[in-house]
Amino acid sequence: MKEIMKILSGIQPSGQLHIGNYFGMMQTMIDQMESSDLHVFIVDYHALTSVRDPKVLAKGTLEAAADFLALGLDPDKCTFWVQSDVPAVCELMWLLSVLTPMGLVERCHSYKDKVAKGIQASHGLFSYPVLMAADILLYQADIVPVGKDQKQHLEFARDLAQKFNNEYGETFTIPEPGISKHTATIPGLDGQKMSKSYGNTIPIFSEGKPLKKRVMAIETDAKGIEEPKDPDSCNLYQLLKLFATPDRLAEIRGLYVNGGAAYGYLKLELLDLLNDKFGAARQKKAEYLADPAELRRILAKGAEKARAKAAVTIDLVRERVGIKY
Amino acid sequence: MKEIMKILSGIQPSGQLHIGNYFGMMQTMIDQMESSDLHVFIVDYHALTSVRDPKVLAKGTLEAAADFLALGLDPDKCTFWVQSDVPAVCELMWLLSVLTPMGLVERCHSYKDKVAKGIQASHGLFSYPVLMAADILLYQADIVPVGKDQKQHLEFARDLAQKFNNEYGETFTIPEPGISKHTATIPGLDGQKMSKSYGNTIPIFSEGKPLKKRVMAIETDAKGIEEPKDPDSCNLYQLLKLFATPDRLAEIRGLYVNGGAAYGYLKLELLDLLNDKFGAARQKKAEYLADPAELRRILAKGAEKARAKAAVTIDLVRERVGIKY
Repeated sequence: MKEIMKILSGIQPSGQLHIGNYFGMMQTMIDQMESSDLHVFIVDYHALTSVRDPKVLAKGTLEAAADFLALGLDPDKCTFWVQSDVPAVCELMWLLSVLTPMGLVERCHSYKDKVAKGIQASHGLFSYPVLMAADILLYQADIVPVGKDQKQHLEFARDLAQKFNNEYGETFTIPEPGISKHTATIPGLDGQKMSKSYGNTIPIFSEGKPLKKRVMAIETDAKGIEEPKDPDSCNLYQLLKLFATPDRLAEIRGLYVNGGAAYGYLKLELLDLLNDKFGAARQKKAEYLADPAELRRILAKGAEKARAKAAVTIDLVRERVGIKY
Repeated sequence: MKEIMKILSGIQPSGQLHIGNYFGMMQTMIDQMESSDLHVFIVDYHALTSVRDPKVLAKGTLEAAADFLALGLDPDKCTFWVQSDVPAVCELMWLLSVLTPMGLVERCHSYKDKVAKGIQASHGLFSYPVLMAADILLYQADIVPVGKDQKQHLEFARDLAQKFNNEYGETFTIPEPGISKHTATIPGLDGQKMSKSYGNTIPIFSEGKPLKKRVMAIETDAKGIEEPKDPDSCNLYQLLKLFATPDRLAEIRGLYVNGGAAYGYLKLELLDLLNDKFGAARQKKAEYLADPAELRRILAKGAEKARAKAAVTIDLVRERVGIKY
């Protein structure tokens, strides 16, 4: 094991971050930024498999950058870039492609799953695992944090790295799946796991009326204020737990157990806590979005760092396969 | 129709050119070089689907460059480069990929045909038509000379260009198949069409004993010298026809018809004619191969020209799809 591990994560240029993302991915990233050589990139090439509106994609890319920077990703403490600013990843994709048995691609679930969900059955969607392998191998990542749905793709990248190394000599680091320390499941408004696909999220960057509406929609039982309640089976309590100070949480727990917990009041308290926690980030995000030139400058600097790292790998790979004549 | 058409041809970095290639492809190219905006590139990315030895590929690339330059391709009168010197083609491949229906790729014959012939069933081999489309569209080719086996791939490139233009607005030229003026079939040693896959070729750059051996192996009938023979059904005569002066050809025809044609003697005459015709090119090729630095300088200059043209297209495409944020 190396002292400093290179960790690589891709983030979608679409979609509102919610507090489930914050306590999962975001906290993990901030930890990794301090303890490892963190690489984070916005996957706009990948997003093209489902996003067809250029304005939506371009806007989503800048917004994702603003989101992550606002929440504390420090571009001087990690490498942070937009995938398409390093087109060498597409070249590596081809160079891996010729070594990738078709059967390996055909066995990936994600293509069929996505097509079943109505995403267009494009060649890009089918080939996605090869591009993802190129993403990982181009930067010689040691660790790639993956959810259940991406586990097979990491296995795929490992297979390709090994195959290439066997065929042409040691070239690629074999990436390991990352295991997150933050495994707590954050409940959504309805008590299921908070997830964009369930429509039960509390977005981090929402505020004012729309945010209040979300918070007031947290589902609770029909018990009266003075009735004793079980905090551990209550969504609202689980969410308050993430934001309240230990002292205040103990008080709230008392109200649940002994009677006196008013859901409406506690929801407003949660709303205040959310605003306290994310107010500064919202402010920062607004500043970034008001100054896209600065955002682009930060991303350009990140791209430069990423390109320099990518160049080392791609030069070696080109030599290995014989296209450096 | 534009005044000056942009014609694009890819050439393999493997394999010995033979006189069938010369009177087909090579003469066509020389004509096109004078009358059109000719683009010729050595397809080393493609070759990777079957060539696994880096030394063979790198050497093949330089040799192909030497072959074409020696035979008269003038890098100042056309754009001549190595495919992998313009990696933007891989990026365009991905950007087209997300728009390519899987069914369109699955319907291409070449993948199944090549797998049936024993080439490894790789994802690269399967995806080859998308890379070929990117080759064509990146340079906005008007005309692509294609043989029978590549006709479907050109149709594929046209489909993708139209699809992209419909989706994102006019971006790509719709390429047309090129029809060669040089359609004469050159017979091989055995009278079948001269083709590498039949093993019946006369290589252009072979000389000395190996060349003599090939020429002496031209199949003829068993008739004696003095017997009258039919020149038009004789391989050897068909080959002499390509190289002999009209006066000498008339004399030879007389010997066939009236008796007196000695096959062995005529083969030696063909050998002399071959040496006369290709002697200078062989000399030039040897000079290029003795000075690979000069060869690389020529290719680097070509790559620069090609990259400048590719950049115009790829910048536009990036903007169209929204990865220029």
